[in-house]
Amino acid sequence: MSVSRFLSLVSCGLLLFAADGLAAPQPKAAWVRGARQRLAKSSKWNSKRQYTQANGSACIETEPADFQAPKDNIWSGLTNWEAASVTKWLFEQGELNLTVSDDAGDWDNSILLVELMVPNKTDVLPYIDGNATAPPRYAHVVLDLRTTEEPTYNDILVGPLPVKNGTTTWQPLEYPYTRKTGGSIRNLDADSTALETDWLLKIGASISDITFDLWGGTATGADNDTLDIWGIDPLWQYDGKITRWDTFWNYPTDDFDAETLLPLGLFFKSDVTGRDPSKWKLEGWLYNDIFYPTTDAFRTAYWDSNFTKLGANVEGDWARSDKIGPVLPMDAASPPQSVAPSGSRYSVDQKAKYVEWMNFSFYISFNRDTGLRLFDIRHKGQRILYELGLEEALAHYAGNDPVQSGTSYLDSYYGFGPYAFELVPGYDCPAYATYMNTSFYVSETTHTHINSVCFFEFDADYPMQRHSQSTYVANTKNIYFTVRSVSTVGNYDYMFSYEFYYDGSIRVEVRASGYIQAAYYAHNHDYGYHIHDSLSGSMHDHVLGYKADFDILGTDNTMELTTNIPVVQSYVWSDHPRNTMKLQRSFVESENNSKLLYTGNGRTQYRVVNTDKPNKYGEYRGYRILPADGTIHLTVENSSNLVDAANWAKYDLMVTKQKDTEPRSAHPYNGQDVYNPVINFDKFFDGESLMQEDLVVWFNLGMHHVPHTGDLPNTVFTTAHSGVQFMPLNYYDTDISHETVNMVRINYNDGNVSNVKTFGQQQAVCSVDLAKQDPDLYSYKGDVVIRKFPYDPNDPYYETDAIV
Amino acid sequence: MSVSRFLSLVSCGLLLFAADGLAAPQPKAAWVRGARQRLAKSSKWNSKRQYTQANGSACIETEPADFQAPKDNIWSGLTNWEAASVTKWLFEQGELNLTVSDDAGDWDNSILLVELMVPNKTDVLPYIDGNATAPPRYAHVVLDLRTTEEPTYNDILVGPLPVKNGTTTWQPLEYPYTRKTGGSIRNLDADSTALETDWLLKIGASISDITFDLWGGTATGADNDTLDIWGIDPLWQYDGKITRWDTFWNYPTDDFDAETLLPLGLFFKSDVTGRDPSKWKLEGWLYNDIFYPTTDAFRTAYWDSNFTKLGANVEGDWARSDKIGPVLPMDAASPPQSVAPSGSRYSVDQKAKYVEWMNFSFYISFNRDTGLRLFDIRHKGQRILYELGLEEALAHYAGNDPVQSGTSYLDSYYGFGPYAFELVPGYDCPAYATYMNTSFYVSETTHTHINSVCFFEFDADYPMQRHSQSTYVANTKNIYFTVRSVSTVGNYDYMFSYEFYYDGSIRVEVRASGYIQAAYYAHNHDYGYHIHDSLSGSMHDHVLGYKADFDILGTDNTMELTTNIPVVQSYVWSDHPRNTMKLQRSFVESENNSKLLYTGNGRTQYRVVNTDKPNKYGEYRGYRILPADGTIHLTVENSSNLVDAANWAKYDLMVTKQKDTEPRSAHPYNGQDVYNPVINFDKFFDGESLMQEDLVVWFNLGMHHVPHTGDLPNTVFTTAHSGVQFMPLNYYDTDISHETVNMVRINYNDGNVSNVKTFGQQQAVCSVDLAKQDPDLYSYKGDVVIRKFPYDPNDPYYETDAIV
Repeated sequence: MSVSRFLSLVSCGLLLFAADGLAAPQPKAAWVRGARQRLAKSSKWNSKRQYTQANGSACIETEPADFQAPKDNIWSGLTNWEAASVTKWLFEQGELNLTVSDDAGDWDNSILLVELMVPNKTDVLPYIDGNATAPPRYAHVVLDLRTTEEPTYNDILVGPLPVKNGTTTWQPLEYPYTRKTGGSIRNLDADSTALETDWLLKIGASISDITFDLWGGTATGADNDTLDIWGIDPLWQYDGKITRWDTFWNYPTDDFDAETLLPLGLFFKSDVTGRDPSKWKLEGWLYNDIFYPTTDAFRTAYWDSNFTKLGANVEGDWARSDKIGPVLPMDAASPPQSVAPSGSRYSVDQKAKYVEWMNFSFYISFNRDTGLRLFDIRHKGQRILYELGLEEALAHYAGNDPVQSGTSYLDSYYGFGPYAFELVPGYDCPAYATYMNTSFYVSETTHTHINSVCFFEFDADYPMQRHSQSTYVANTKNIYFTVRSVSTVGNYDYMFSYEFYYDGSIRVEVRASGYIQAAYYAHNHDYGYHIHDSLSGSMHDHVLGYKADFDILGTDNTMELTTNIPVVQSYVWSDHPRNTMKLQRSFVESENNSKLLYTGNGRTQYRVVNTDKPNKYGEYRGYRILPADGTIHLTVENSSNLVDAANWAKYDLMVTKQKDTEPRSAHPYNGQDVYNPVINFDKFFDGESLMQEDLVVWFNLGMHHVPHTGDLPNTVFTTAHSGVQFMPLNYYDTDISHETVNMVRINYNDGNVSNVKTFGQQQAVCSVDLAKQDPDLYSYKGDVVIRKFPYDPNDPYYETDAIV
Repeated sequence: MSVSRFLSLVSCGLLLFAADGLAAPQPKAAWVRGARQRLAKSSKWNSKRQYTQANGSACIETEPADFQAPKDNIWSGLTNWEAASVTKWLFEQGELNLTVSDDAGDWDNSILLVELMVPNKTDVLPYIDGNATAPPRYAHVVLDLRTTEEPTYNDILVGPLPVKNGTTTWQPLEYPYTRKTGGSIRNLDADSTALETDWLLKIGASISDITFDLWGGTATGADNDTLDIWGIDPLWQYDGKITRWDTFWNYPTDDFDAETLLPLGLFFKSDVTGRDPSKWKLEGWLYNDIFYPTTDAFRTAYWDSNFTKLGANVEGDWARSDKIGPVLPMDAASPPQSVAPSGSRYSVDQKAKYVEWMNFSFYISFNRDTGLRLFDIRHKGQRILYELGLEEALAHYAGNDPVQSGTSYLDSYYGFGPYAFELVPGYDCPAYATYMNTSFYVSETTHTHINSVCFFEFDADYPMQRHSQSTYVANTKNIYFTVRSVSTVGNYDYMFSYEFYYDGSIRVEVRASGYIQAAYYAHNHDYGYHIHDSLSGSMHDHVLGYKADFDILGTDNTMELTTNIPVVQSYVWSDHPRNTMKLQRSFVESENNSKLLYTGNGRTQYRVVNTDKPNKYGEYRGYRILPADGTIHLTVENSSNLVDAANWAKYDLMVTKQKDTEPRSAHPYNGQDVYNPVINFDKFFDGESLMQEDLVVWFNLGMHHVPHTGDLPNTVFTTAHSGVQFMPLNYYDTDISHETVNMVRINYNDGNVSNVKTFGQQQAVCSVDLAKQDPDLYSYKGDVVIRKFPYDPNDPYYETDAIV
């Protein structure tokens, strides 16, 4: 068994480590220094600090003020040097029997991931809130151990860092997981090479007569193949077997990433239990809703004159995202755009990845599994959230065919970090935004996505506040601050935005674009719309689970519910009982009742409060969680695909007591054993009190997506969106947005204005040269890679990962 | 009875009318011509058409292209001349016994309203869709008939227009109403003057010893009064009596409109049945939740030493919207703003009030009751909506005191038109927006609110669409077009926006700001948060009812529901039944099942489709109604305040067959007789088939508002918002947003860009002089008024209505 095998390795990890020769080399390549310079906002793609000039003269750029994070960012990830030294050290641990990734085959051990182990919250608080030293740093390493008949993925810890002779050890990482198997879980992907060459393509070749007849092409492994074969995720795991369903897809015929629009409607089932492809079994074919138990049976039927052949999905302009049709009226004139005449009005410490905007501050973190996250979000110096970020994104499909029905992507398996590509200035973010690089480890290298997080201020198209009266009108601008990244995980582009507002509110938003994964249309009427020749828009739920670790005036917090309810009520002042309404206040008292579905008609306010620190009127200060932009939870009940792998998707809001042992609701390898996943979120709920405890709110965003013709070629962000707002509620004594100077009061009467009060705000009257903020899109880069083993920062190169 | 009395007037209306002397004078005053000029976009507050210049040179303004609506706007309202001639004609109808408004007392008849009678849809279609002549024009007039013991409001029609000897008549207007009383309904406000002077202030004076002792002030009608008295709306109407509850409020002590934050907690009940104040009865007092049946009983208790005196609410900085506190970091630098380097990319025919943007076109209408509405909204020349606009806004309060409990404002009574004030450029709309004036009739004058509707394009802070792949990234800008007006009805500012997108979607949004109406805090814990010294944020539901008359490929339409449902399903390809999901499709078949509540978890798509015109794949083309931004319906069931006056507020979506006799879901005088309102919306539902009929969708926006300290001094738009999107669903064969040129495709590989495709889009590289778009806020005007009777357009004046 993989478990016992792994446990035998654990003791070996206690061997001492010799760290000779691991002094950090200094990067010398010009572009490396240049990139760092770019991050300090000197590039025209980065923010411009400009001060308002006299009437008509040009707005000019000046240097940003000196700025530094108050504390080290202990969530910011390993340095290149740390990752390199851990990698080197691991290769020196003989018992791990590691092979360099590029050389590793299906039967070799390799390193999948080296990144920072996010420190425990209880270890961090004394540091960020007091004078304690920072907690020791550890690397979180994932090993891919394939040398046995029972291949596993293994999470281990390496540290403390820096790697040092005699102190650095490795140990299995188990405490953050509900599955107690020493951080080890089976690897169902270990034989992916064999699967491709020895199984799928051989089966493709075995029916090339049929594929050629049906679609004019083959999937055999030949260079002139026009067909691809792939199927369900996760694999079927019941009855002690591992079963997969695969189907044929047309390759796109040009650059466009349209393959997921080109399913061909022929499916086959394989029993792929065990590691020996010669023992795998082809268990049948499905075409036009008819099941054939063998290839022979299918071939016989196919070449029978009564066989019904269905159409193919073939790429065309309908699947390409380039402009179509004549130019729209006036569309050739340049459209409105936002400009920042005074440059950025926020501070980004690029080195520490620390940000301040108005009363807000926070640290940026980035990891392979889930990409961007924020830590220690404070307002007026007081922490609101210890941590805010994505945990997992589920895309649960359904359909009349086994591939759509069997698809329930858990995207952290692919990772949001590796697919957080460079943002397009002027499109993904305003041209004047500040950009930040992100990095992730893969195959003994650090990949860096240049400009993959952006920061910008924006003037909303509506004010923060206004009031008109017969003698005056008062009005406040709504300038907000956004942090954004986009991850394209395969066919889908998720845009993640965190927005901060003058009134102390925070908005968490996700939008979805990119290519849908479509279904073959036959018999799929109950699962999607018929959207092209032989294409059905396969229905699916996007459920994106987030973690929001609130700290409202400390860590002792309670979730209060305030619900509007209709009542029939008698009063001392009324002869009749009255049909009216009132508030019902209650608390989420324990983990026995803390999995919540939003009540109908938006009638409940969900608030994290601190009942020990009421305001002067006796009301609990807190932040409300307001589903503001459409949210969902998973439609499917007890999903056959997921079993226990995504129990976080079943509700809207889930509240647990913060524990260092429950930092994540999902693990990227949950799909490897859906009956016993690494993290079974349901196990977090063990009845503990939630009254004045350190609370974590797990919430879901998402969309029920039933693609229609308007999703061709790509889904549009305008209608595929989901978001919540965290808004201060009885948190301050008044609305604090009127601390801004960006407001006006106009006093007037009978057509004359007597006073225009502008409160010291600066109205830019300079000239903005739009040419200067026109981004040079020819400098788009994609990935930059630094090899870790051997570490050589002076020999970087560009390489953009293929997207699955 | 008022009904029979009114019917006797009907025959008189058939008298012939002599129209001599009503030739239209030409306006001469300079500002009138100036204003018209302004509307033609020559003012710097209006849109600038500018063309992109060579690198760095200034963006310059050019004239807009000639542009004209394809048809007359038959919804645009009466001309000044039409309204003047109708007014004059009405004064000539002796049987109406009219008095000029300024001279009219509680026992005189007067004209409340003269505006366009919106023509019947069935009469309009042959005109806008064919070659028929426009339907005849009529004036909709509301008379306030008070000369009898049974005062009434009366809706009548005058026409056809123009007013002409021998053809113009008046007739009662009854057909658009469910109440069949000749367009007549009782007037409970007829004695408002007497109520104030002979009742409320006398009662105030009768306890001035107590008010002075409690609050240091009086409400007696004296100049030095510091207290105001007002109460419930609508009045209690049961048991054959008219009962009111009133309470005392502190006046604000300066310019700020803070009175609704200053309740004082003393209430009294009056039986005001009938028109003779001497027969009205004071029925008791309420203070601190103790009811006193008489003033004597209250006074005796008050001056007893055991009486508990509670605190007062007094204005202070907490109630003022001016800037507070120190300047926020970097906030004194000018913030980002949107600019329009090429000027407006849309066309506004100011005369016809007709608008075109990209593939969209529509006509603007404006009326007293509900303000801005849009007619004949077309996309690619094909009508999507015949009519879209607000019907009514309900603010239903609740509380432990009779005034809050008894308040259920139906705001069309006050009217959204009269309170659609001048917008503040750079705050309510971008400085480069195009503005339009609106007008409404009041007291024999036409009031014009300058620049009270705005039109602008905006670049959203996120793209329309994007997709990254390892070899390319494609990205489309999301430029949208907005039409906006703001109505401040008393304490509240409603911002109404209609947004149009490249993908053919339309967003309807409302945001709320301004002052809350707060409650006195005592014993109100179950109805609101304690938010200031003696103040409770009185809970209330804002429900804003809208009409959306869809015409999808003609008027034969059906509402289709598509719902995601969890299922346990067996398949030919699976040994086990599977827990998955599917789509359930159904139709809203008749008015028996057409009052809809949104299903939980957003699982249902609501679509207006035309089943006779499927697309080439057999799917019904249509538009989906997507609650996108939080929507609600009324919490209260069978409201004691409203009875049958606002039955439209009880659901989320309501579908009816379009009828010329059911153009409106609400009437401004519904509150005058809540048991038998002018329009009882429930009566629209009489079981008729809705399969391929002309459908109207009545939908609600709104917020459950439980004000908290963050609502002081004003509610913020950022968190008080509600919206729906209408999105094409299977309407076109693909997403049509990729018709825009404002997209890019970057092909790249290994750090090098091989191609940047920009599709002919124009990137502005000129300089925008921000000084030129800096609005001159000293030119804010407010109302302009033209007297109608006698009509004199050359003697206009400025006058801004006091807001209730």
